[in-house]
Amino acid sequence: MSDPILATYRIRADAAEAASIARFIAYEQTVELPEALVDDPFLLEHVVGHVLAVEVADDGCFHVRIAFEASLASGQLAQLINLVYGNVSMYPGIRLQALALPPSVLEAFRGPGFGIQGLRDLTGVHGRPLLSTAVKPRGLPVARLAALAADFARGGGDIVKDDQNLVDPDFASFRARVGAIAEAVARVNAATGGRTLYFPHLSARHADLHRYAAFVREAWLRGVLLCPHVLGFDTAREIAQAHGLVHMAHPALSGAMTQAGDNGIEFGLAMGTLLRLAGADISVFVTPGGRFRFSEAQAMRLAQACTEPLGALAPAFPCPAGGMDITKIPHLCGRYGRDAVFLVGGALQAHDPYFARATTAYREAIERCIVGARPT
Amino acid sequence: MSDPILATYRIRADAAEAASIARFIAYEQTVELPEALVDDPFLLEHVVGHVLAVEVADDGCFHVRIAFEASLASGQLAQLINLVYGNVSMYPGIRLQALALPPSVLEAFRGPGFGIQGLRDLTGVHGRPLLSTAVKPRGLPVARLAALAADFARGGGDIVKDDQNLVDPDFASFRARVGAIAEAVARVNAATGGRTLYFPHLSARHADLHRYAAFVREAWLRGVLLCPHVLGFDTAREIAQAHGLVHMAHPALSGAMTQAGDNGIEFGLAMGTLLRLAGADISVFVTPGGRFRFSEAQAMRLAQACTEPLGALAPAFPCPAGGMDITKIPHLCGRYGRDAVFLVGGALQAHDPYFARATTAYREAIERCIVGARPT
Repeated sequence: MSDPILATYRIRADAAEAASIARFIAYEQTVELPEALVDDPFLLEHVVGHVLAVEVADDGCFHVRIAFEASLASGQLAQLINLVYGNVSMYPGIRLQALALPPSVLEAFRGPGFGIQGLRDLTGVHGRPLLSTAVKPRGLPVARLAALAADFARGGGDIVKDDQNLVDPDFASFRARVGAIAEAVARVNAATGGRTLYFPHLSARHADLHRYAAFVREAWLRGVLLCPHVLGFDTAREIAQAHGLVHMAHPALSGAMTQAGDNGIEFGLAMGTLLRLAGADISVFVTPGGRFRFSEAQAMRLAQACTEPLGALAPAFPCPAGGMDITKIPHLCGRYGRDAVFLVGGALQAHDPYFARATTAYREAIERCIVGARPT
Repeated sequence: MSDPILATYRIRADAAEAASIARFIAYEQTVELPEALVDDPFLLEHVVGHVLAVEVADDGCFHVRIAFEASLASGQLAQLINLVYGNVSMYPGIRLQALALPPSVLEAFRGPGFGIQGLRDLTGVHGRPLLSTAVKPRGLPVARLAALAADFARGGGDIVKDDQNLVDPDFASFRARVGAIAEAVARVNAATGGRTLYFPHLSARHADLHRYAAFVREAWLRGVLLCPHVLGFDTAREIAQAHGLVHMAHPALSGAMTQAGDNGIEFGLAMGTLLRLAGADISVFVTPGGRFRFSEAQAMRLAQACTEPLGALAPAFPCPAGGMDITKIPHLCGRYGRDAVFLVGGALQAHDPYFARATTAYREAIERCIVGARPT
């Protein structure tokens, strides 16, 4: 087997069991037959996974490394996920911890259509993290949502995106709402010379997704917020790619896949590596210390997975979010460096009754942290 | 709030925390703002969730019941999932335990296109569970896969479906493979007068899914195997519905959502209720006592969710699978009754070197268990 997919699983098991669970994974994920039924040399060499290592990990769990023939991914994101974690997801105590993909697999994916550099070119923001906020809450009149987005643009914010709960009952409402917000932001940009981007949340019945995305382009918008864990990773990839839109990935439902320590998929893999394969340009995740419990180490690993080399795929912006306030900006800048998007929602609304002024305060706090940051 | 969506969460928390976590969910899933920022009476009445109850559960956890305005689901499966579990999935110790949907939400969904009765009509099998198997392993020549499917038809099996790892590198290979298997099964049906169904696994890049599904119809096949947890629930729904195909749902990746006791979504909800909204006619799940650890009570709840009343939606077949052998058939018949599909893969291949004879043995074992079962 040359140039295989290397998958590492973290297994909670007795030492006596670990090796047999490793073999179970190698068979279950490929031939899905008991070992005794498989004696064909071709299958044993090219279809059954090869267990390369079973090692004790720091926490008493085992790390199992398995090689899968690259062609078994069939050049598809859905099948890649199936191959490395489909069936064993149902077996308790097996977590997919890491994935190393060979060039032959990576070449099947375009990855982020814009990536960090592309988004810097669109916004004109170089040398510092980007500031983002959410249009919310659902239930406000469209005029108030549009005013909020306009104030964010007026205050010098970079990316204003819909809350993931901003979903419209039909296409006409989507057009009316998104059109109004887009126009409000465009008007401020025209007046100030700013380049604030507005990304509407694209959620519709499957058959309508392309129609909604086409309208986003017609409204001269450059990107969308998508929930790949809800829509399906490859559905989210296709919708953004087919319309040339920036793909800002919201983590809704991701916790179901990542939160359980002994099961599911490691944070950086689920929300960094796999999302880059899904074409995400920005990966939103919850900050440690915010409303959600999430460790600093996990957040760092996730940010690393967004930006580390991955074949020819562009790096994506890690986007910490949730429960941030302005006093944490220096810490966040120190943690994530320049290549991050800071998504501030409720804290920005709470900071100052004048939303434009709150935005400027946050933006200035970001600029102060980054030595030598320049707006060009 | 009339006719709300009622969501029940199981929360692992101290008694002191439980009520505040309940309020956190009600705000986080709707306005996604701190309570102090929301004073608009309309938002408080119609957008913020209403906490109806916080009760101690048997295991020391709390059950929290929250009412959400039905319109917040926007008639979309993706948004319904977002609304009831999107963000709080990332908060440890919150599991979505149950969901009661009002008529106004259920009416937006067609549900299973065939359901139990439709599949009985297609197969001509009444009064007993259906017998199903998987074409596998990947890596065998197409002729051998086709022979396996033909032998299953010859032995009197009801539904032969592709293994979820049977994925082809391109459309031409898919057509060649699926066409060959379809023809082999059709030839046996023509000779025996049988009505064995063959469901290929539909996995392709998103942009190709409709083309693949259209070919399945052109090959005179009546259904497909889909992996909704990988493809996205609403993507799977649309592909099967748009082409009038039976939707057999494979549980690949579902464990990432269901396995962790303190997080994720309850089995019956994820693989019964939500899959029926996604149009699944058959929900495959792993049997307790098979290769996967899964309790009898969980399996029973899942089977119940497949068949219990759910607005005007048809019931779906629960389909226990994985590590079954013929000695367990009486137990399975006792457990699931007539309205089930028994999916037997490796055990059927291991039972007898003559696959047709193995199939007949399993079918007869099923018929023996069900008193008064008749083939019409």
